Amino acid sequence: MKKDDVFQDSFEVNEAVYQGFLNTFNDHNPLHTNPDFAEKKGFPHVVMHGNILNGFLSYFIGEGLPTKDVMIISQAISFHNPFYLNDKIAFTAKIKDVTASVGVYNFKYRFTNEANKLIAKGTIQIKLLA
Amino acid sequence: MKKDDVFQDSFEVNEAVYQGFLNTFNDHNPLHTNPDFAEKKGFPHVVMHGNILNGFLSYFIGEGLPTKDVMIISQAISFHNPFYLNDKIAFTAKIKDVTASVGVYNFKYRFTNEANKLIAKGTIQIKLLA
Repeated sequence: MKKDDVFQDSFEVNEAVYQGFLNTFNDHNPLHTNPDFAEKKGFPHVVMHGNILNGFLSYFIGEGLPTKDVMIISQAISFHNPFYLNDKIAFTAKIKDVTASVGVYNFKYRFTNEANKLIAKGTIQIKLLA
Repeated sequence: MKKDDVFQDSFEVNEAVYQGFLNTFNDHNPLHTNPDFAEKKGFPHVVMHGNILNGFLSYFIGEGLPTKDVMIISQAISFHNPFYLNDKIAFTAKIKDVTASVGVYNFKYRFTNEANKLIAKGTIQIKLLA
């Protein structure tokens, strides 16, 4: 892994992901579960939990890199547009800088929907495990 | 909700949460699933996924505030110590500032384990839904 390396993946926010997140974390806020509430707030459907994207980030770091010897140090995300059940989300990450002496890598990443609209973006810092 | 308000909760990282996260997001990195690997890397047990804490944050924002009319704008987390299966994690959040004109609230939060060790801390920004 080196500076400017780019990684791409895609994720589907299907029923299994939505129900899995709901059942694991019990966030039944009406924005995420009540279509009438979501509509009153100006959304066409219930809005998926933003933190589903953080689960996808876990998968990317844990399974999507050339090495498995990694641990997340910190991460940040900002949410720009809502996403909905059955959306297919494209993910792109790029290594912004590397501190080889301590095995620390800084990525920036973005999630976009099928209309190429920005859903969320952020940064993630990982460390190689010795 | 006003500046300096404090919220507290606790979460158990039990088998249902661990398996729910694994099955939802498929991050089977050996640090999280292979006790021998975790031990070789210097940990007493498999390390739980840091992003489980982001699921707990979703629950806090979605279900733990005095209002349900909220949406997350951004969040950040830094991981300070690993946590393990069956750990009981205490959560504290405090409102750092409020921009009432736009309904934006900034929280800082921390997760600690039963030994009062810092597991993770960060910030989260939410907006009230009109």
